Amino acid sequence: MDKIKIAIDAHGGDNAPLEQIKGGYDAARQLDVTVVLVGNQEILSGIISENGLSHPNLEIADAREVITNDDDVMSAIKTKKDSSMVVGLNMIKAGRADAFISAGSTGALMTGATLIVKRIPGVRRAALAPIFITDRDPAMLIDAGANTSCKPEYFLDFAIMASVYMERVEGITNPRVGLVNIGTELSKGGDNIRSAYDILSAAANINFIGNIEARDIPAGVCDVVVCDGFTGNIILKLMEGMGIVFYKNLKEIVKENVFSMLGAALMKKGLMRFKKKIDYHEFGGAPLLGIDGVVIKAHGSSNARSVFIAAEQAKRFVQNRANDEIKREMEVN
Amino acid sequence: MDKIKIAIDAHGGDNAPLEQIKGGYDAARQLDVTVVLVGNQEILSGIISENGLSHPNLEIADAREVITNDDDVMSAIKTKKDSSMVVGLNMIKAGRADAFISAGSTGALMTGATLIVKRIPGVRRAALAPIFITDRDPAMLIDAGANTSCKPEYFLDFAIMASVYMERVEGITNPRVGLVNIGTELSKGGDNIRSAYDILSAAANINFIGNIEARDIPAGVCDVVVCDGFTGNIILKLMEGMGIVFYKNLKEIVKENVFSMLGAALMKKGLMRFKKKIDYHEFGGAPLLGIDGVVIKAHGSSNARSVFIAAEQAKRFVQNRANDEIKREMEVN
Repeated sequence: MDKIKIAIDAHGGDNAPLEQIKGGYDAARQLDVTVVLVGNQEILSGIISENGLSHPNLEIADAREVITNDDDVMSAIKTKKDSSMVVGLNMIKAGRADAFISAGSTGALMTGATLIVKRIPGVRRAALAPIFITDRDPAMLIDAGANTSCKPEYFLDFAIMASVYMERVEGITNPRVGLVNIGTELSKGGDNIRSAYDILSAAANINFIGNIEARDIPAGVCDVVVCDGFTGNIILKLMEGMGIVFYKNLKEIVKENVFSMLGAALMKKGLMRFKKKIDYHEFGGAPLLGIDGVVIKAHGSSNARSVFIAAEQAKRFVQNRANDEIKREMEVN
Repeated sequence: MDKIKIAIDAHGGDNAPLEQIKGGYDAARQLDVTVVLVGNQEILSGIISENGLSHPNLEIADAREVITNDDDVMSAIKTKKDSSMVVGLNMIKAGRADAFISAGSTGALMTGATLIVKRIPGVRRAALAPIFITDRDPAMLIDAGANTSCKPEYFLDFAIMASVYMERVEGITNPRVGLVNIGTELSKGGDNIRSAYDILSAAANINFIGNIEARDIPAGVCDVVVCDGFTGNIILKLMEGMGIVFYKNLKEIVKENVFSMLGAALMKKGLMRFKKKIDYHEFGGAPLLGIDGVVIKAHGSSNARSVFIAAEQAKRFVQNRANDEIKREMEVN
């Protein structure tokens, strides 16, 4: 069997292309996959040779344009046909790559994936579904920003797709699905969320545990956190912001004086483990669930490590055929 | 001049009445105010004498019923006329107390305050406005759950009331007001939030800094965080949940072995300061802004310390006449 082929948008993200190339190189070397860096051939090969990053499993697919965060999403996808993002998405469409990872504009990636790769039949809306680390296991948040407002039935699609992903790709049996609300009582929230509750309660193919409060998300109250894209975006970014502030404070405490530095040295193992737990570079990317292909949004500030982790995640996504299962579930639904 | 009189719902909250009594006692002893514990006379005086908590500035106002979280909010306010909450709110209405603090049901307190104490003329909706600690200063979140969905003009009332509060009560000059959105660009969010943006931009009496992302809230990007009650509730509870998990992890790291325990001992001063920073018992309560009287919701799990801090906050709220200023601003508006 051919190696799994993972395309990486070499020009997407704050630290592109160097970190994308480094992460791609690490993936090519360690994951037994072929990595295709999508971007400007000369620039990429220049950096690769300068940094000694060439590898037999590391290829380049030439693309001469770049979509930036300032571009209008729709027109960028339609006019920048030779951008790294559009070229990469077309590789997925044509079956010339098994997965595509980009740290570029979330809006452009979602729009491009929907227009070029298309949605899985029966899926009403594709969703951005980041993995985050709870106090227990990794969990999935869906939707984290693709659909600002959602009809109640979208929540069901989200719940089904994320449940399949968490079971197949993350190995969590019968993932617990929670609906984000402002209280656990049935009467809480607006009409929309109450209808979503009813639909999720009636669904036979998910393990719905009911309404959850945001307070319980970090502790790992469920494996799949379902909400509209506005709410999900707030949750995702607030978790990130809290992590940043906590880490900064911890660093300040450590650096306060020689005693605290010595103290931190004695606690080093635990502190490093904690740092890893709250560092979003370690979380992996956000699959675009509902797209008929494996497309993963990596964090805009991805470094080589996050690109590598997203590649690992993409490999598992492809290998475990999660999209085949999502297709079957969506047919039944 | 008479002492400021602060009524405390002795039967509201998970740890009532003991922690309410203790916190009230501390306030009576330290804050140069009169504290009135509202609740069952025999029970309260029994606990007071058992624990040696009597004080000349500590009084009791008898109330024989209790509103619980399981009560239907509207009918509880209407039928439990002799509940500690209704009696306390009537004291505010009649001018027999200057402030009322309750750690009981948020919904009942908001409904009761609106029905009994009434809204300040011109205020379209009263809001739950908790104080939280950012990496810089305390900030105010408004609304944190009283109004699940909001018309655009409500956001303006929220912004004005919270700005007055932060300036008058917390001493922050020209408080920066941010509107929670899923991106800082004008085009982000739904129609409702875009209209709110326009209204806030046009307001002359607030210092509106534009859209803010949830990521920047913990760092202290603004002093007044404006959003609808659904979003605000998610933000408040997620911050709380993150704090709990961080603290738990930190404790586990400390207790790992003798070296880490020694290490923590060397970092103790910094760690204690950090603990205080993330402990919501230290944050103070949530004023019900827009109510024509000083009513403060304390956290449901309040201990004596949080009750004391809420009393301190209530005293400052009364002393600085923030509601007089809100009235003036709402007339102009």
